[in-house]
Amino acid sequence: MELARFLPIARGDKPADLVLRNGRVINVFTGEIVETDVAIAGDTIVGVGPDYEGREEMDLGGRYVCPGLIDAHVHVESSMVTPPQFARAVVPRGTTTVVADPHEIANVAGAGGIRYVLAVSEGLPLTVYVNLPSCVPATHMGTAGAALSADDLLALADLPRVIGLAEFMNVPGAVLGLPGALEKLVAFQGRVIDGHAPGITGKWLQAYVGAGPGSDHECTTADEMLEKLRAGMVVFVRESTAAKNLRALLPAVTLYNSRRCAFATDDRHPADLLDEGHLDHLIRLAVAEGLDPVTALQMATLNAAEWFRLCDRGAVAPGRRADLVVFSNLKDFRAGMVFAGGVLVARDGNPVGDWPMPVVDDANVRNTVHVEWERLSFAIPARGERVRVIGIVPDQVVTEHLVEPAKVVDGLAVADPERGLLKLAVIERHKRTGRVGLGFVRGLGLQRGALAGSVGHDAHNLIVAGCDDTSMMAAARAVGDLGGGLVAAAGEKVLAAVPLPIAGLMSDRPVEAVRDQMERLVEAARGLGSALHDPFMALGFLALEVIPALKLTDQGLVDVDKFDFVPLFD
Amino acid sequence: MELARFLPIARGDKPADLVLRNGRVINVFTGEIVETDVAIAGDTIVGVGPDYEGREEMDLGGRYVCPGLIDAHVHVESSMVTPPQFARAVVPRGTTTVVADPHEIANVAGAGGIRYVLAVSEGLPLTVYVNLPSCVPATHMGTAGAALSADDLLALADLPRVIGLAEFMNVPGAVLGLPGALEKLVAFQGRVIDGHAPGITGKWLQAYVGAGPGSDHECTTADEMLEKLRAGMVVFVRESTAAKNLRALLPAVTLYNSRRCAFATDDRHPADLLDEGHLDHLIRLAVAEGLDPVTALQMATLNAAEWFRLCDRGAVAPGRRADLVVFSNLKDFRAGMVFAGGVLVARDGNPVGDWPMPVVDDANVRNTVHVEWERLSFAIPARGERVRVIGIVPDQVVTEHLVEPAKVVDGLAVADPERGLLKLAVIERHKRTGRVGLGFVRGLGLQRGALAGSVGHDAHNLIVAGCDDTSMMAAARAVGDLGGGLVAAAGEKVLAAVPLPIAGLMSDRPVEAVRDQMERLVEAARGLGSALHDPFMALGFLALEVIPALKLTDQGLVDVDKFDFVPLFD
Repeated sequence: MELARFLPIARGDKPADLVLRNGRVINVFTGEIVETDVAIAGDTIVGVGPDYEGREEMDLGGRYVCPGLIDAHVHVESSMVTPPQFARAVVPRGTTTVVADPHEIANVAGAGGIRYVLAVSEGLPLTVYVNLPSCVPATHMGTAGAALSADDLLALADLPRVIGLAEFMNVPGAVLGLPGALEKLVAFQGRVIDGHAPGITGKWLQAYVGAGPGSDHECTTADEMLEKLRAGMVVFVRESTAAKNLRALLPAVTLYNSRRCAFATDDRHPADLLDEGHLDHLIRLAVAEGLDPVTALQMATLNAAEWFRLCDRGAVAPGRRADLVVFSNLKDFRAGMVFAGGVLVARDGNPVGDWPMPVVDDANVRNTVHVEWERLSFAIPARGERVRVIGIVPDQVVTEHLVEPAKVVDGLAVADPERGLLKLAVIERHKRTGRVGLGFVRGLGLQRGALAGSVGHDAHNLIVAGCDDTSMMAAARAVGDLGGGLVAAAGEKVLAAVPLPIAGLMSDRPVEAVRDQMERLVEAARGLGSALHDPFMALGFLALEVIPALKLTDQGLVDVDKFDFVPLFD
Repeated sequence: MELARFLPIARGDKPADLVLRNGRVINVFTGEIVETDVAIAGDTIVGVGPDYEGREEMDLGGRYVCPGLIDAHVHVESSMVTPPQFARAVVPRGTTTVVADPHEIANVAGAGGIRYVLAVSEGLPLTVYVNLPSCVPATHMGTAGAALSADDLLALADLPRVIGLAEFMNVPGAVLGLPGALEKLVAFQGRVIDGHAPGITGKWLQAYVGAGPGSDHECTTADEMLEKLRAGMVVFVRESTAAKNLRALLPAVTLYNSRRCAFATDDRHPADLLDEGHLDHLIRLAVAEGLDPVTALQMATLNAAEWFRLCDRGAVAPGRRADLVVFSNLKDFRAGMVFAGGVLVARDGNPVGDWPMPVVDDANVRNTVHVEWERLSFAIPARGERVRVIGIVPDQVVTEHLVEPAKVVDGLAVADPERGLLKLAVIERHKRTGRVGLGFVRGLGLQRGALAGSVGHDAHNLIVAGCDDTSMMAAARAVGDLGGGLVAAAGEKVLAAVPLPIAGLMSDRPVEAVRDQMERLVEAARGLGSALHDPFMALGFLALEVIPALKLTDQGLVDVDKFDFVPLFD
C-alpha cells in the first residue's frame, strides 16, 4: 500500500476501510493477548488500537484475532490439486501464506513448471511463495524431465515471490563439497536456504549447517531437534500425511527456543486436508499436547515470517498485510473468519465471495506423458532362477531388498500373485527414450489386474505394477491417454481413474472431487486384492532411488545402500 | 571463509586452527549453557562439539563462552576518538560488532565523512557496520556542512558494511508524509530502517511504524517500551552517557518479548567507556537488576544480529564468524579473552597483539574549520532593553526560554557574569559564510574567560560562550587553529585544549589520552568559575534547534516550540 494513502488513515485523519472492534488480538511479538481494535485499509493493517473509525465496522464480541498462518514448507503437488484449488482447501482453515517447494513439477517440467506455479498462484487469497527445488534430478540413476543447475536456479531467484533454495536434500553433496551441490550453495549464499537432513548428527551436522542450509523439517526425535536448534537451525515441526513428527518433537520446544521453531505440512493428501485440516490441525494437535496456544500461534506466524524474511506479514501490526484469522477457542483453534489482504475470504471453513482463478498458459505442464506405446514391452527374458524383489513396508517409504525364486513361463519371468509377487515397470515418460525398468514387487497385494500412475517420486515416470502384462499395458496406456493420472485396470478394462493432467501430478478439479475420485480408485484397488491403506502412495515411492533399500527407475534396479545399479537376476 | 576450506575441517577430516576445550557455551538459540568445545579455522567457527582436533588447543577450564557483543546503535564520534581508537576501547570489553550511525561526521563532511568512517574501520577487530544518517541536516534553521538527500543515501547503500537507515528522527516528516522524509523511507523500503520516536504513542506511533522505522532506542518508560514492542518495533535498551534508560525499561522485558529487545550505547564519552565500560556495563547492570544472564546475552548478540540481518554472527555456531568472549562469572560479566575473527585480540581488558591501524586519506575530514576571522565580530548593538536568554538545565539537553534586562555598555549589549549572563556565539564554520548567531546564556557559571568548541550538535558549528569578546575570540580562534577542538581561554591566553582534528569532532589520540585532556580542560573551566559536571557537553547542545525551548544557531535564535526564529531583543 502506498505510504501516501496509508499515513492519513493510520494517524486517524481519514477513516479506515474496515475496523474490527472488540477483538482479543494475539500479539506475537510480546506473547500477550490484547483487547483492542484492528483498523484495515486496502490490503494493509493501518493501526491496532482504540478509536479508529471505519467505513465498515465489525464487532468481534471478544473473539480472538491472530495473523494468517504461514506454512514453512509444503509441496502443493502432494494435494493433487493446483495452487488455486489448494488455496480453496487451506485458506478457510486459516492459512494465508505458504512457502511452496515445487519440487515435483520441476522434476517433470523444469523451470517451466516453477513458472507455472508462480503464474497460477498470482493474486490468490493464499500468498504462495516459492523456494526453488535444490535437487532436480534427485540422482543420475533415474531420468527426470528436467535438470536444474545453479545457473538455472539463479535465473529464477529474483522473480517476485521467489525466496531462496528449498530443502537441500543432497547432504553428502553439501558436507563433502561435491561440485554440483557446492555451486548451488555458493550461488545462494546470503539468501534463505532450507535444509533436509534426516538423522544427520555430530560433525556432519556442523559441516552441513556451516555449508548454508539453515532450517530442517526432517527431525523425528526431540533429541535430534535439540541438536539442530543448538547448531543454529530453525526447525519446522512437520506433520504430513506420510510423516507425523509433531508429537515426538513437541517435548523439545521451550519458551527459550520456540522462536526458532515453525510448522510445516510438507505433503498432505486430499483426504487429510479435508478431514483433518492444514496448519489449524497442527496447532490443535500441539495445544492438545500441552503447548502454550500463543507459542503455537507464534510458531505458525511470526517465526516462519522471520526465517523467510517476510517482514510484511506474520503479525497483527501497522503496515503489515491484513491477513487475519478470527477464532473463538484458544484450546481448539478453528478459523471462524479469514481475511486475506483485508478481504473476508472465508467463514466457518468455507470460501466466501468470488475468488480469482488465474488463467494461465499451462501448455508447458500439460501433455507431459510421452511414450512410444508400440515399442513398449514388459517381457522379462529369464536370465536366472532367482530375482531381486522390492519388498514394500506398509506406511513407510523405505523398502526391503528381497531375493526370491523366479516364476518362469515360456522362458519369461512373470508375476506370481499367489506368492504375492507382482511385476513392476517404470516407463520413462518425459523424453520418449523408450527406456523401461523392469522388476518385481511384493506387498501391494493384487490378485489380478494392475495399478499405474504418473506420480513416481522424484522423477515421476510412469510406474505400473500388475499380475499380467495385458492389465499393466491397459493401466499404463490409460494413464497416458489421460495425460497423467492414477489408474486401476483388469485385463483391458479400466476400473477407475484419477486424471492428473497437470504434469501428471495434479488434477484441475477441486480437492473434494479429487478425494472422491481417489476413494473410488482405492476401492477398485481393494477389489483387485490390495489391502494397503493407499496402494498408490506405496506405488509412488517405489522409484525413489535415494530411499533405501531397493528401488526401480526407468534405468534399472537400484541398490540404494550401494548407490548403484544391480541386476534383476541374482 | 571458503566452503572448500571449511568443510573438511568441520566434518573432522582436517584439524582446526584452534580448539577451545572445556567451555561452557552460551547457546543463544536455545537458552542453554552447554559444556563442550569450539573449533575455529580462519575467521570462522567450524564446529561446536567434542572430538575436534586443533593445531592449537586452549583449555578453558569450564569458563563461559558467548558470542562477541553487538551494539545496535552507537555514534562513535561521541567517544571523541576515531573508529580504530574506539575499537581499542570497546573490543577488550567484549564488543566485536557495532552498528554505527555516523550522524555527526556526516553533518560536517557529508558522504565523505561516512566514507571515511567505513575506510578507517576496515579490517579492525571490531566490525563497524554503518547505518546511514537519515536526517542531515537536522533542520534548515542551522547551517550544517552537508545535506544528504534520498539519492545521496542510496548512492551509499550498497557499499560493504552499510546496512540501511539510522534513527529516523524526523517523526513529523514520517507520520505526515512530508516530501523529504517520505522519499527516504520509500527509497529504503525493504532495508533495515531504525527509528527514533521519543514519547510517540497511539495513532502517531502506528503511523510511524507503518511508515517503515522498525526499531526504537528512545524509550524512557516500561509502558512506552511495551507499546512499541506491541506495535512491532524492536527496542534497543539504551544506556548512554546522557540518557540512562536501562533500569527504567528492564521491567518491561519478559521471556516472551525479549527476542525483540537488544542493547545500544548511543553516545558514551571517554571517561564512561574507560571507567564503566561498553556493552559489558549494560549487561552487568541488567543482570544486577534481575535479568536472566542468558537473556541479557541474547539481547547483546543474536537479537541485534537478527534485527540487522547479520546472519554470519551473533551465535556460537558452525559457519558463523569466530567472534567470541570467554568469561568467568555469569553474574558479573567481564570479558576475559576476546576473539575477533578467530584471533585472540584482547585479554583481561587489554588489547593483545598487533592490531591493524588502517591508513586512509582523511583529507575530507581534516581542516574542516573555515572561518574569516578578520570579519568576525561578537558585538551586539543594543536594540532594546530586554534580551532573550537561553537557560541551561543541568544534565539535560532541553533549555529554558528566559527574558532578562540587557546590560548595555557604549550602545552594545554585553555579558554580565555577576548576574550569570554570558554572551553566546555560534559561528558558521563549514562554508565560510561569515554567519554568526549571537545571544546570551545563563547557567555555564563562568566568572571570567570563555569556552569554545567545534562540537555543537547537530550542525557542529563553532560555539563559544564567554564573559568578554577578547576571551571569546581567543578561545574560538584557538579552536580554529587546532582545526577543531575544545578550548578554555581567559583574555588572550589559552588555558587548556582538547584538539579534535577529525571533523572537529574526534581526536586522533587514544581514548585514555583524550580522557586526560578532557579532565585538564574541565579543570580549567572550573578555574574560570563553572560548576557544571561537564560544561562542554552543555555548550555542545545549545545549538541543537530541534530540542526545546530556546537555541542559537549560526542563523539566529530559535524558539523550538514555535519552530521559528525569534529576535534577540524582546
